[in-house]
Amino acid sequence: MIQVIKNGTVITMDDKREKKYEKLDIVITEGEITELTENYQGPYDKIIDATNKIILPGLINCHTHLGMSIFRATNDNLNLQDWLNHKIWPIENHMTDEDVYYTTLLSCIEMIKTGTTTSNDMYFGVGGSLKAIEETKVRSVFSRCLTGKDSDSKKRIEEFKSLIKENQGKDLLTFTVTPHSMYTCSKEDLLEYEKIATEFHLPIHMHYSENQSEVEGIIKEYQTSPAQALKDLGYLNHKLILAHGTFISEEDQRILASHDVSIATNPVSNLNLGCGIADLVQYKKNGINLCLGTDGQGSGNNLNMFYHMSVVDQLQKAKYQDPTVMGSYDVLKMATINGAKALNLENKIGSIEKGKKADMIILDLNNTEIYPTVDLITQVVHNVESNNVDTTIINGKVLMENHKLTIEVDEEKLKENIHKIIDRLMEKEAK
Amino acid sequence: MIQVIKNGTVITMDDKREKKYEKLDIVITEGEITELTENYQGPYDKIIDATNKIILPGLINCHTHLGMSIFRATNDNLNLQDWLNHKIWPIENHMTDEDVYYTTLLSCIEMIKTGTTTSNDMYFGVGGSLKAIEETKVRSVFSRCLTGKDSDSKKRIEEFKSLIKENQGKDLLTFTVTPHSMYTCSKEDLLEYEKIATEFHLPIHMHYSENQSEVEGIIKEYQTSPAQALKDLGYLNHKLILAHGTFISEEDQRILASHDVSIATNPVSNLNLGCGIADLVQYKKNGINLCLGTDGQGSGNNLNMFYHMSVVDQLQKAKYQDPTVMGSYDVLKMATINGAKALNLENKIGSIEKGKKADMIILDLNNTEIYPTVDLITQVVHNVESNNVDTTIINGKVLMENHKLTIEVDEEKLKENIHKIIDRLMEKEAK
Repeated sequence: MIQVIKNGTVITMDDKREKKYEKLDIVITEGEITELTENYQGPYDKIIDATNKIILPGLINCHTHLGMSIFRATNDNLNLQDWLNHKIWPIENHMTDEDVYYTTLLSCIEMIKTGTTTSNDMYFGVGGSLKAIEETKVRSVFSRCLTGKDSDSKKRIEEFKSLIKENQGKDLLTFTVTPHSMYTCSKEDLLEYEKIATEFHLPIHMHYSENQSEVEGIIKEYQTSPAQALKDLGYLNHKLILAHGTFISEEDQRILASHDVSIATNPVSNLNLGCGIADLVQYKKNGINLCLGTDGQGSGNNLNMFYHMSVVDQLQKAKYQDPTVMGSYDVLKMATINGAKALNLENKIGSIEKGKKADMIILDLNNTEIYPTVDLITQVVHNVESNNVDTTIINGKVLMENHKLTIEVDEEKLKENIHKIIDRLMEKEAK
Repeated sequence: MIQVIKNGTVITMDDKREKKYEKLDIVITEGEITELTENYQGPYDKIIDATNKIILPGLINCHTHLGMSIFRATNDNLNLQDWLNHKIWPIENHMTDEDVYYTTLLSCIEMIKTGTTTSNDMYFGVGGSLKAIEETKVRSVFSRCLTGKDSDSKKRIEEFKSLIKENQGKDLLTFTVTPHSMYTCSKEDLLEYEKIATEFHLPIHMHYSENQSEVEGIIKEYQTSPAQALKDLGYLNHKLILAHGTFISEEDQRILASHDVSIATNPVSNLNLGCGIADLVQYKKNGINLCLGTDGQGSGNNLNMFYHMSVVDQLQKAKYQDPTVMGSYDVLKMATINGAKALNLENKIGSIEKGKKADMIILDLNNTEIYPTVDLITQVVHNVESNNVDTTIINGKVLMENHKLTIEVDEEKLKENIHKIIDRLMEKEAK
């Protein structure tokens, strides 16, 4: 099947092109971008008219817990440890795989509606989660969060290994190994998890240096810096995605930069839980690949990457009291091509280029509330809301067109189910 | 005419009530709130069904330049002085009163659609601006920005005085005197403007301590601190709304707190222009009334107060690396009742209370992207986007109902006119 997206203004995120955006027709053949041209006149099966609209690579959310949608915006006035210990973990313990199916399904729809086409997820209840991901046809880098503490730890590892084997070669699904963090997993556990990464050639995704007290704890426990400790554990021999990285010393930045490490920053979650503002400007100077995550909705409020892009840009400008240290285009890179690099998917996604998979979104910026668009890139990063996301395409498949989902899902029924889960699990907390 | 809003959950922002939100019917008689009751059974002319919806006092934007909508999101990589000198002022010089009519009209519609019912505006082109404000029936605290530098300065002052006299006693319109700032106006000019405040018993609204270099300049020029300089100029004898106040020393905070001064913080603008993060937690501790502004769209990106509320809350939590220092309800106060206090309108607006004017908005939070609502106040402050604003009522008049404007305005025609203005004024900048 040949689909053509006609007459749109394309922000390709392809640094090899001269312009940051240009009028281009995009030809998609069997899910792959086969042509980018000024006025396509060839054959087609379907045309999508993008006149006066903007086309962008699908956004890549590099740190999610898709199953946490029912904890949305529950972080007010709570620091990280209190929030986890009192608000999240006691409730999560009662969640079933079926619960996680519904909560993940809600997150997948939120992503499609807000323009995210790939997530890098870690959670539990993997059976339910994977079912939701596959049903909604979003691209996923997936894992089972390994916490070590679990009494069924060994069993979980075996289950996870089976999961990887069963799902090899799928178009929309790849895996990472995800120890929860150095502060929740023992050294022995971490060494055990590292073996899985070696066995299956998988990247490792984990929480890292989320707040200052975590860093202090690691230094005390390992008698060395967090990055050096990771190195000693063999983790820097793997492709590594470190979520948060709010506090990284200059010396540790250099260690990380000399290996295949990406920092997935979660600015909104860090603000909400009082973890502080990561020094991304310095990380970038030192050569670390920076990508963007929302974290779960509990601490990050939502999965709308546009909101998170706006915040991360503004924060660095504020931190330095200098608006020239970062910019809208840098942030757009974090949410697209840098994310693809972090997830080992740069040959497939992250930019609109011939030969890549057709993961892209179409934005309509013509509503009065955000009119006019004077500087396109700044407008996209700072003023786009979910209702500006018009169409979402993953792997060439149109999952939403003109704001209407094309996948089969009964949104009202889903919300009812979510409501029931909350009633059961969170009644005491919901007041 | 009696209107009843039935079955909604009302966040009254009335501290005298026991609960932060409750199910209440609201009775509006001739534009005034006449009853708040659990199940109204009396007479009515119109019912608005708010089942499963949230009702909030209309938001109050305490620092705007409504005429600046065409500069939306033009701040990328520019500091305050470069942005003003190179991006804004050269273009503003060519704007006519008619241009300002259209640009203000666009802003008024943006406000109605995003739930703001009152703005505290300073700009030029007052004839055009006032026409747009009156046509759209938004509540306005209004002024002509007095810059001193203008060669027609005396004439402008006389025009402004006439404007005040002509518009006295209007329901939706009050005035402030607005010197642009201490760094743009001479001492002589500032003393001249102070006399207008005395003559007409008006509050004063001005830019103040927006960035560090401004503060240093004032100290050098006045040989005293900015707050002491304001005191010496007689400004602290008036009700004062200071926009920004990003840098205020502890000593100056105490001076301001012992007078009738409000700080209208503009967090997004301050972030974008690298001005830093105001220490609102400390200001509040010292007893200063805090309210919220968006600034113009040029530096603030948009007039959507929900976006700005979310950012201001998160920033204070980050500044202190402590999420308990501020919270969603504090921020909601800044955007409602505190704003009313700042603008001398606390007897009229800012909360949903018997006897106040019916300025309120209805939110629909049932869309899948932000489902579910677990903690209502946090959800309202952090996850509401413009498409959640369902209905906007000002002075009892429904200006938007179920997302449809009821005022007569051709949005497409307006956008065409805006486009033409940009083509004329900003062609070189728009690339």
